[in-house]
Amino acid sequence: MYDLIIVGGGPAGITAGIYAARKKLNTLLITKDFIGQTGKAAKIENFPGFEEIFGGVLMEKFRKQLEKFSIDINEGEEVKAIKKKDNVFEIRTTEKDRYLAKAVIVTSGRDPRPLEAPGEKEFIGRGVSYCVTCDGPLFSGKTVAVIGGGNAGFMAAFELSRYCPKVYLLAASPKPVADEISQDRAKAEPKIELIVNAKIKEIRGKGFVSSLIYEDQLEKKSKELMVKGIFIEIGSLPATGFVKGLVRFNEKDEIKIDPKTCAAKTPGLFAAGDVTDIRDKQVITACGEGAKAALSAYYYLQEQGTK
Amino acid sequence: MYDLIIVGGGPAGITAGIYAARKKLNTLLITKDFIGQTGKAAKIENFPGFEEIFGGVLMEKFRKQLEKFSIDINEGEEVKAIKKKDNVFEIRTTEKDRYLAKAVIVTSGRDPRPLEAPGEKEFIGRGVSYCVTCDGPLFSGKTVAVIGGGNAGFMAAFELSRYCPKVYLLAASPKPVADEISQDRAKAEPKIELIVNAKIKEIRGKGFVSSLIYEDQLEKKSKELMVKGIFIEIGSLPATGFVKGLVRFNEKDEIKIDPKTCAAKTPGLFAAGDVTDIRDKQVITACGEGAKAALSAYYYLQEQGTK
Repeated sequence: MYDLIIVGGGPAGITAGIYAARKKLNTLLITKDFIGQTGKAAKIENFPGFEEIFGGVLMEKFRKQLEKFSIDINEGEEVKAIKKKDNVFEIRTTEKDRYLAKAVIVTSGRDPRPLEAPGEKEFIGRGVSYCVTCDGPLFSGKTVAVIGGGNAGFMAAFELSRYCPKVYLLAASPKPVADEISQDRAKAEPKIELIVNAKIKEIRGKGFVSSLIYEDQLEKKSKELMVKGIFIEIGSLPATGFVKGLVRFNEKDEIKIDPKTCAAKTPGLFAAGDVTDIRDKQVITACGEGAKAALSAYYYLQEQGTK
Repeated sequence: MYDLIIVGGGPAGITAGIYAARKKLNTLLITKDFIGQTGKAAKIENFPGFEEIFGGVLMEKFRKQLEKFSIDINEGEEVKAIKKKDNVFEIRTTEKDRYLAKAVIVTSGRDPRPLEAPGEKEFIGRGVSYCVTCDGPLFSGKTVAVIGGGNAGFMAAFELSRYCPKVYLLAASPKPVADEISQDRAKAEPKIELIVNAKIKEIRGKGFVSSLIYEDQLEKKSKELMVKGIFIEIGSLPATGFVKGLVRFNEKDEIKIDPKTCAAKTPGLFAAGDVTDIRDKQVITACGEGAKAALSAYYYLQEQGTK
């Protein structure tokens, strides 16, 4: 029986692990891998302490630091279901293992929804990005495309127009779904060119992205845009199926938490980082939330008189 | 006229500065120094990315990173008053300078209330600490003293009892003010020895703390405790006088914020880090809050149509 099980090995999960270990909680961290969205990020320039660092290098530092502490780590395993009975959480994994814990922190993050277009996977970190705040400034002075007609797409295009001389914004539908205010702002910016009825066909390049092929669904014609960067903003898929019934979700399927404590609906269950309904999905905010969740789990166990 | 003025140069202020600069806000950061509580901390082992780092070294890294961005920095200046008029903040400093901004982030932190006993200042970082969560594990296996009869003192003593064979807990009054539950827990722990009616006289040592002298106010006798560490937990003094009237305070004089956005009472005014009513006063949480406050200021300026 563990004091605490942490689900996920991104910045939130690792920071939670460090804090839990320092509070001498008997802790298990279960994660598919130590890569996640941060590990895939290009150069990170907004994590305090590192002027410039590749996402994968930062994740490796995090992981090494965690391993210095007394904590069990199950890598390569995914959580399939969590149940609570008699104040104990039972966690089942894809390996059909079963673990028990008095408290749980969910930090399973989220994956950006992929386009599933040819070339997309190949050019991740080489021109294809899912995060303007993370990677936008790296495309300073270059022509880029944003894919996605929702608020996220418009916000991304507007933000990129600060760095880039030309930003194509592609929406699949004839009328983008973003708020009017976002659409007005983008229309007022001459650097942004909105293209509707666009079905993405392929991302091309050699080593690095060089162009985007789409089909104009009105004209039924294939077109090519010469771009160095492609930002995909068509939503994300939070990995939270395993925790249904124990938490409340918002309209984006994010776990609702008490922003002061990271507590989810079920006592003893906490969530931190991108899997939650916090507004800013940033590495540094995820770390802060992970620390907060671990301290909350510690206080919870103290209240329960089990620690 | 600045878009944003950040008051304070600790982890929250610097992270806010990095995020604001990346959003191309025209920003000024005003700070007395780049030391604060973090700069005074002994080895930090719970900031993700650094297995072990001295507080002063981490602060120097933060500062260098901030200086790489396009941001104005006024070091050696303290903010004396902030007023808001016609949607513009006017900031006056001890140098009698006057600055204008559309938005403000207060990250002025807090200072632990000092004992004001001889030897205290001399041994900061050499046995004297104001933060058990930060420094407790460094005293593993050693005899230590905690000064303070409130909840913070009892919690500190209880936490230290995990690492230390003997923990003296000194309270000034005959009956400590901490919650019963905290007092019960400490009493049940044989490693903790409560000493009441204790008036601290002096901290002694040579290079590092070796003992604590106090007066037993009932017996009117001076006594000496041989300790390697002294944790001072007698409250703290937030530096928030300059912002009165624009924010709400909690009972500890901390600035009340919306935990989702860091917004304080006055539109356009945000606060982040130890100066606020967040529960966990940690370097990593302060950084996360700083990022959040800067993004909130950015969204606020967008809504105002001024950015």
